[in-house]
Amino acid sequence: MAKDELVLLDFCWSPFSVRVKVALAEKGLSYEVKEEDLMGGKSDLLLQSNPIYEKVPVLLHNGKPIVESTNIVYYIDETWDSPQLLPTSSYGRSRARFWADFIDKKVFDAGCIIWKSKGEELEVAKKEFIDILKKLEGAMGDHDYFGGDKFGFVDIVLIGLSSWFFAYEKYGGFEIEIECPKIGAWIKKCKEKESVAKALPNPQKVYEFVGMLRKMHGIE
Amino acid sequence: MAKDELVLLDFCWSPFSVRVKVALAEKGLSYEVKEEDLMGGKSDLLLQSNPIYEKVPVLLHNGKPIVESTNIVYYIDETWDSPQLLPTSSYGRSRARFWADFIDKKVFDAGCIIWKSKGEELEVAKKEFIDILKKLEGAMGDHDYFGGDKFGFVDIVLIGLSSWFFAYEKYGGFEIEIECPKIGAWIKKCKEKESVAKALPNPQKVYEFVGMLRKMHGIE
Repeated sequence: MAKDELVLLDFCWSPFSVRVKVALAEKGLSYEVKEEDLMGGKSDLLLQSNPIYEKVPVLLHNGKPIVESTNIVYYIDETWDSPQLLPTSSYGRSRARFWADFIDKKVFDAGCIIWKSKGEELEVAKKEFIDILKKLEGAMGDHDYFGGDKFGFVDIVLIGLSSWFFAYEKYGGFEIEIECPKIGAWIKKCKEKESVAKALPNPQKVYEFVGMLRKMHGIE
Repeated sequence: MAKDELVLLDFCWSPFSVRVKVALAEKGLSYEVKEEDLMGGKSDLLLQSNPIYEKVPVLLHNGKPIVESTNIVYYIDETWDSPQLLPTSSYGRSRARFWADFIDKKVFDAGCIIWKSKGEELEVAKKEFIDILKKLEGAMGDHDYFGGDKFGFVDIVLIGLSSWFFAYEKYGGFEIEIECPKIGAWIKKCKEKESVAKALPNPQKVYEFVGMLRKMHGIE
């Protein structure tokens, strides 16, 4: 069989792209990165590959596009065997899909409200964000990872978004390690993995990027 | 192995429950229905089974809860073999998950805006709803079903929500068969299936239920 050709349409500050990079690294797959200029103009390849949302990340596998980051991680796990990221039982997989969907519905949007808000609205947003993380702590229970004793699918879905947490903390005036120590410890543990450490952008740089977004939104 | 015990926590007008009923019928599974009194008070069983969202449908499989309707349909397909609802290839499954997610993000919410709106806002809502259905027509292409030549996962995800389409048409003043003939024909074809016909509630009754919701929201 010919070698798989993998191309990632990326934007370097995208927390969603991080998920795909971690999953590819976990499977030991090499790939080409094509950086999109989202502030300038999107490439024709991006527009053709994801005509519905026109967003990164897109993974092109031998030219065929897979879109939406959680879906891409799922695809990577179903296409390349080892290590398995989703649980083996159908019940375990249903729990993993549930929590991945919860993260997709809640975490990034709640974080955006933090960096877009001030005063009373910011206090409400922080409370909401911390409440979401506490629910996730409940889902992790006494395990090291969402996947139990090994790093897996839900861990990847959340660790990508964690790349923006430092910016939320700075603009929100709170510390996740203090508010949600279990999530704080989990992030540290994940960062010890090479697949994660290499995929996560520099938190200070993300903070500066979010600062630029704040200016574009007329905040401060 | 002991016989599977399946219990569905249901609300008779829920378009999301319809999905689960169709999937169970496709697999030839029998189950007990426990109707929730969502207007009165939710049962302890519902609150314990779905503490995050406190919503129906919940499928209890030998006492273990599976929640969120699309996730339940996925679970049913992974747990019972025949007929297979999801495509066999990992790429096909990634496309099915993408469109199921698109439907989950768009269709029901857009429909709600129709029955909650009037005047200019209603016109915008109708245009948005029809635009969503047209995108879905594009996804179906020249096939009979979203699953290609056979009824499958994405068909089930959308056909459940179609149980409220008559109400949208009546309150919105439009006809899906005229605006989106391919979706109109697809609905008719799906309704020829016993699994669908038995699961769909009476459109007139749904229309009356939505009318009651409108009154509760102070519309009219």
